[in-house]
Amino acid sequence: MRTTTASQLAQARRRLAELTSLDEVLELLGWDQEVVMPSGAAEARGRQVSTVALLRHQRLCDPQLARLLGELAATEGLGPVDAANVREALREQQRALRLPPELVEQLSERAVAAHGIWAEARERGDFSRFAPILGELVDLARKKAAAIDPERPAYEVLIEDFEPGMTIAGIDRLFAPLRARLIPLLGELRGLSGPARPQAMGATIAADKQEALGRELMGVLGFDWSHGRLDRAVHPFCGGAGMSDVRVTSRYADDDFLSGLLAIIHETGHALYEQGRDPALADQPVSRARSMGWHESQSLLWENQVGRSPEFWRFLLPWLAEREPAFAGAELGAITKALARVDFDNMIRVEADELSYPLHVVLRYEIERDLFAEGPDRLAVADLPAVWNEKMQRYLGVTPPDDRQGILQDVHWSGGAFGYFPSYTIGALLAAQIFATAKGAIPGLMEGLGRGETAPLRAWLGREVHARGSTLSSDALAVAVTGSQLSPEPFLDYVEAKFRGAYGAPERVSGGAGA
Amino acid sequence: MRTTTASQLAQARRRLAELTSLDEVLELLGWDQEVVMPSGAAEARGRQVSTVALLRHQRLCDPQLARLLGELAATEGLGPVDAANVREALREQQRALRLPPELVEQLSERAVAAHGIWAEARERGDFSRFAPILGELVDLARKKAAAIDPERPAYEVLIEDFEPGMTIAGIDRLFAPLRARLIPLLGELRGLSGPARPQAMGATIAADKQEALGRELMGVLGFDWSHGRLDRAVHPFCGGAGMSDVRVTSRYADDDFLSGLLAIIHETGHALYEQGRDPALADQPVSRARSMGWHESQSLLWENQVGRSPEFWRFLLPWLAEREPAFAGAELGAITKALARVDFDNMIRVEADELSYPLHVVLRYEIERDLFAEGPDRLAVADLPAVWNEKMQRYLGVTPPDDRQGILQDVHWSGGAFGYFPSYTIGALLAAQIFATAKGAIPGLMEGLGRGETAPLRAWLGREVHARGSTLSSDALAVAVTGSQLSPEPFLDYVEAKFRGAYGAPERVSGGAGA
Repeated sequence: MRTTTASQLAQARRRLAELTSLDEVLELLGWDQEVVMPSGAAEARGRQVSTVALLRHQRLCDPQLARLLGELAATEGLGPVDAANVREALREQQRALRLPPELVEQLSERAVAAHGIWAEARERGDFSRFAPILGELVDLARKKAAAIDPERPAYEVLIEDFEPGMTIAGIDRLFAPLRARLIPLLGELRGLSGPARPQAMGATIAADKQEALGRELMGVLGFDWSHGRLDRAVHPFCGGAGMSDVRVTSRYADDDFLSGLLAIIHETGHALYEQGRDPALADQPVSRARSMGWHESQSLLWENQVGRSPEFWRFLLPWLAEREPAFAGAELGAITKALARVDFDNMIRVEADELSYPLHVVLRYEIERDLFAEGPDRLAVADLPAVWNEKMQRYLGVTPPDDRQGILQDVHWSGGAFGYFPSYTIGALLAAQIFATAKGAIPGLMEGLGRGETAPLRAWLGREVHARGSTLSSDALAVAVTGSQLSPEPFLDYVEAKFRGAYGAPERVSGGAGA
Repeated sequence: MRTTTASQLAQARRRLAELTSLDEVLELLGWDQEVVMPSGAAEARGRQVSTVALLRHQRLCDPQLARLLGELAATEGLGPVDAANVREALREQQRALRLPPELVEQLSERAVAAHGIWAEARERGDFSRFAPILGELVDLARKKAAAIDPERPAYEVLIEDFEPGMTIAGIDRLFAPLRARLIPLLGELRGLSGPARPQAMGATIAADKQEALGRELMGVLGFDWSHGRLDRAVHPFCGGAGMSDVRVTSRYADDDFLSGLLAIIHETGHALYEQGRDPALADQPVSRARSMGWHESQSLLWENQVGRSPEFWRFLLPWLAEREPAFAGAELGAITKALARVDFDNMIRVEADELSYPLHVVLRYEIERDLFAEGPDRLAVADLPAVWNEKMQRYLGVTPPDDRQGILQDVHWSGGAFGYFPSYTIGALLAAQIFATAKGAIPGLMEGLGRGETAPLRAWLGREVHARGSTLSSDALAVAVTGSQLSPEPFLDYVEAKFRGAYGAPERVSGGAGA
């Protein structure tokens, strides 16, 4: 490598490390706000966050960094990691540079206003209160997309905030088979009497006890306590301040222990991704998780593929029974079947089971896609509740009685986040495909999980996924990890077998059918 | 006010608010590190702190801000608050601008190295290991002082980091009478049998119970929980993220409840200062506490003048007895006398009683002053342990058996902080003078404290001290609050009466005597 290139690389890395530090500070300010900040500090916190975010934006858009990255991107012979690092930094920088500062400010200002209006509209179950500002946010998001790339469909540009490299065609290819197989499957199961809920699952367990069990289980999953913590928050999340400081939060309902435990397993999955990043690149963008979908794949893999599997429960049930009398008499099969119950009356995404969840996402995706469409296909904001309710009936067989349980249930749009929802289901598909690969790649994986041995899976995921960060594109990473492009089939096969089993429905014999 | 001036003021305030936000972020990063950060995150935290500190430095030294402040400082007819705000900002900026960046970096780099070396030297009780790097730090601090103001004595320039406006002559004027009266008083009391330690003071109380009592007492003192919290840390401190987010920390020893409770009262005194700042100026430098000494005056006023007074204990003892059986049979007089016990064998500053403490500070002040003196008066680093031990014997009547209990006991110098120690005693003097004024200004103050009524004192301190922030110079503030310049007499009279009383020594009849 030429001396100039080496010195340019060193300079770029120093500047990118600075941006990483500011990201970590912003992440910590967010964690603090959710977990420990006193209520009266919100205004000052807003000022602190804007100040750091603005300085970060200025440093990101600094002309010297732009020149450095531009020159490095044009340099032949960079190693693959350096090249990926430059590519990731450049992508973020170019998006930022193309956004007019007034638009950024307007977006942030309207999102703050919209959050309050949404919360009030939701409280009253009245979409018409939210519609005007939602319309404004959609217009601003359209302007944002046009500023970043006027050649591509607006929605596709927005998706890239969450899934770099993903396209509308790509999502359609993944989601169409979900509709095609999940809707009829749900219809079939609806007629059957589902698995009973064992008594242990309704046991009352104090929050402190639940937290202590959750903490111990995090250790079983391999969470590194010297680089992380567990705290409480209203909505569970995984935050912190970079890969050496990974903070899981959860909440506990006295009468719903298992959902709290699964929430901890879910967040621990996110945490293991962060803790598994390449420490030598910790301060560089290339070490970051590949995408929201990839992050979700790790949480869902641990929560669902492991945490709801009969094999892991062979370990978990006696482990729980030793620690909590309510589980002493519980039967293994009854519990794992009950973890595959469909609540056919549920219309809330965050409470949905594994089988219904993707349809909640498909519905939102289609609505977002059509909101940002050009020409006669474009969906009008005013029509959203009707479209929502009609799709709910068609996909999930229920019609929300009001907007609160319908179109107003999610916070995302009020924050101006359009294009986020697909990542949840991309994560679920990835989780199934990755776990299917892991079963083939790790000898005795399921038997080991039955003894609570999580290290082999963690080491494999660390090597295959976590440590790779963003060195590869999303598509290339899927191929590198699983040997093929992302496909909905492993997920559909997994979920169908699991729920048919739990409902005692006949096994599905042949592949894919139309909706 | 001219339009130009108004617009310049608005611009300056916007930029100063940005600096305040970054200060608050840095303060929060420090709190987090002491209270919740996992051990393995120290390296990343160092990177985060340096990044924010460097950006803050760049913003502080920005030529546009320098021009703005310069022009505003030269503008006639600014209101007193705006003028003080500009003055405070300018003082900080000029100190920063005069320091060469290489020197700042060197100071910070050597201080990090010195901390480790000091800790090891202290562990081994061997000053000779610490001496070389201490010498380097003294040289660097001398360079720093010369860069800031080559016309003034180096030590005086260093003091200004903690006590703006304070001079060596000013400290000598305050500290000489302390030596003159405290040394003979200590000598007199040493011959007497001191107050006994009542059984209640040795009671074993669990840390959780202590914390709960401390929390409740903070409420009695008027701590605002919507703008603050209480947590645990190895060394108690008051931190947070600005006046709307004030975080007290403490620690609890099972067998030393009262010292833990007094530590909480002390930190709550700091916290009330922060919570009492002018909210309309929260993001401006003028709202900040006047100095370290002024901050300490508020913690010591609540800890000693209130928290160790027989009057407040009329409220506190029954309050404690209701909550903790160990205090049920305790006698009021015995406890308040025991709070004025001298441990004549103690040689550790942080464990010193109210009477001995100032002599520990005088000793350090004299050593620092002489370390930075010019010409033949200059004290050599190699001579420090001998000078330390000789002064300890002369002032406090004890000679440390080793450097660990002598010259190596404090962390300050290893961090390059020279000139900090005087603030502790300036705070004690201020506390006594302010409290003497409060007694005259607030009708029935002491009777009210005897009923646990803290609101009148808090309101008075809020108006007289807290809300004034840095609008006045330290000298002018002392006059505004107490009617006269700071003097050692109120403190000496207070402490002499208190300790003579506890020791049953005859009252002192006439004023000031030579040492």
